Amino acid sequence: MNDTFLKACRGEETDYTPVWLMRQAGRYLKEYQEVRSKVDFLTLCKTPELAAKVTLQPIDILNVDAAILFSDILIPIEAMGMHLEFSDKKGPVLGDPVRNKAGVDRLVIPDTEDSMGFVLETIRILRRELSDRVPLIGFSGAPYTLATYIIEGGSSKNFMHTKKMMYQNPGLFGALLEKITAVTIEYLSAQIRAGAQAVQLFDSWAGILTPYDYENVIFPYVKTAVKALKKFDVPVIYFANDCAGILKIVKKCGADVIGVDWRVDMQKAAKKIGKKASIQGNLDPCVLFAPKEHIEERVQDILNKAEGTRGHIFNLGHGILPETPVENAIAMVEIVHRLSRKK
Amino acid sequence: MNDTFLKACRGEETDYTPVWLMRQAGRYLKEYQEVRSKVDFLTLCKTPELAAKVTLQPIDILNVDAAILFSDILIPIEAMGMHLEFSDKKGPVLGDPVRNKAGVDRLVIPDTEDSMGFVLETIRILRRELSDRVPLIGFSGAPYTLATYIIEGGSSKNFMHTKKMMYQNPGLFGALLEKITAVTIEYLSAQIRAGAQAVQLFDSWAGILTPYDYENVIFPYVKTAVKALKKFDVPVIYFANDCAGILKIVKKCGADVIGVDWRVDMQKAAKKIGKKASIQGNLDPCVLFAPKEHIEERVQDILNKAEGTRGHIFNLGHGILPETPVENAIAMVEIVHRLSRKK
Repeated sequence: MNDTFLKACRGEETDYTPVWLMRQAGRYLKEYQEVRSKVDFLTLCKTPELAAKVTLQPIDILNVDAAILFSDILIPIEAMGMHLEFSDKKGPVLGDPVRNKAGVDRLVIPDTEDSMGFVLETIRILRRELSDRVPLIGFSGAPYTLATYIIEGGSSKNFMHTKKMMYQNPGLFGALLEKITAVTIEYLSAQIRAGAQAVQLFDSWAGILTPYDYENVIFPYVKTAVKALKKFDVPVIYFANDCAGILKIVKKCGADVIGVDWRVDMQKAAKKIGKKASIQGNLDPCVLFAPKEHIEERVQDILNKAEGTRGHIFNLGHGILPETPVENAIAMVEIVHRLSRKK
Repeated sequence: MNDTFLKACRGEETDYTPVWLMRQAGRYLKEYQEVRSKVDFLTLCKTPELAAKVTLQPIDILNVDAAILFSDILIPIEAMGMHLEFSDKKGPVLGDPVRNKAGVDRLVIPDTEDSMGFVLETIRILRRELSDRVPLIGFSGAPYTLATYIIEGGSSKNFMHTKKMMYQNPGLFGALLEKITAVTIEYLSAQIRAGAQAVQLFDSWAGILTPYDYENVIFPYVKTAVKALKKFDVPVIYFANDCAGILKIVKKCGADVIGVDWRVDMQKAAKKIGKKASIQGNLDPCVLFAPKEHIEERVQDILNKAEGTRGHIFNLGHGILPETPVENAIAMVEIVHRLSRKK
């Protein structure tokens, strides 16, 4: 097996820098669009054969060093009892946002096999079909990020309702986070038992918090989740988006790998994280619109700046954009492999 | 005159920490809504008597230490020749976004008195009506932030078109920024000549850039603008939103005051900025939804962390939200004054 990714996660020597792309299975690929044109988004997530199919597409097309389960971070929220819909205009819409005790009480801690068995079945298919070509990453939203969707009822600009609950009713907010943390741990544990060889926690909205609130209110749940997952023998990746202001807190989460977005300089991030964990990131997804020479320049810059880290997994600093020219994504992977081998 | 704000800008001793709020004239005030209910937003901006009226409202209601001109950062873009409209749903919409050389060439460098005389007239009225109660701050969007609106045609999620031009056609992008910088300098110079006693450059979208692009592509224009404005004897404030990852660059801009958003710890920001400039910020606007005791705790935390800076102007880390309870904004100003006097 190509275990370069797993080695880099554990801080072991590798022949080159492994690379995968957040949202590597997705709309920028015509092969994905072909599958998606026949089913709606949620059906795609819930049909193991199709979810496995689109998970595999970028492995062949891009030559990346890891596969990541195709799914949506809101899947466990639906399993907790909320109505989930995807609107082309408004993005995800969750019915009846949770803003009081009755709402929190109503949320259930689901059995993963019963309510999200399709995710586990997708993983089982993938492990067979990958037949150890590259490792498979499972994932979940981090507890706080899932809480924002549950409270806002979808995406948000200012996350006012989330912060309102956090400031006005810290007890209720804590109870909600505790419940979600339990779900997250169980969900990722089930993914690992089904065959996921690494797991990533996406804290997509961590960056809208003050360092004060992130450290005192949110971070304890991150640590709890990471600690529970560490009892399995697979690397845990924690990605906090827009992390520049909280990276010195983030690095203490106990994860094997810290994912960083593009708004932080890789050298500064590496210095902050030190040898506590490997680092993943952090090319601006928009750099994939640049001419190839410029992509090469930017990849080289990040590789240089990641020198001396415990381990480096190259990635974008956020999900690849649907408008990205696929040939540039292919070129980027080739560039990472070529330039890092030279070392 | 209450010159506490100006003294803090210059790093001189003050009896207490001065405070004002970004967007302090606005929808959270029923007095503002009353004025606004009779005219549309752009008419309000363009009617000096009304713009002056809403500028003054928070001075009486909140007891803040500075007034800031009521206007919109897109005003100079309209003056450059683009069609501007405000939609309640979509926010600002600029017709015919600029994405090629013809578009850049079409933009004019307007004469401020001719095309934005209403802004200057508002300032003149305000200086008379304030009769030196508190200083008046003028403002403009920073060149790059104005460029994002010109290129995207409004707000954006990923700023893909902006970054596309930056990466694919750096020459054109530079020509556009140069043009906007000239406009910004002329616009703020005219505001100062009309009576503005300080000016703030809002770089609202600086934080979506990599430090690499911010430093190499954007920052030279910030420095050019600040330098040109420094020839007047008024403090220049530079506010870069979501600045945690670029603060070490930002601090070299030459401004008297660096404004910081809420996503960075005030102590870390103060340490990075050092004695080069005063610091402005940085309470999370959402903290104004908290109970008063919690607001007091958070204000105290920021005041403590700003100790030892060259000068501190208390502010929110971003604009006050329309849903904010006005009594909490009033309480926050009182708390800042009371706690900082104790020292």
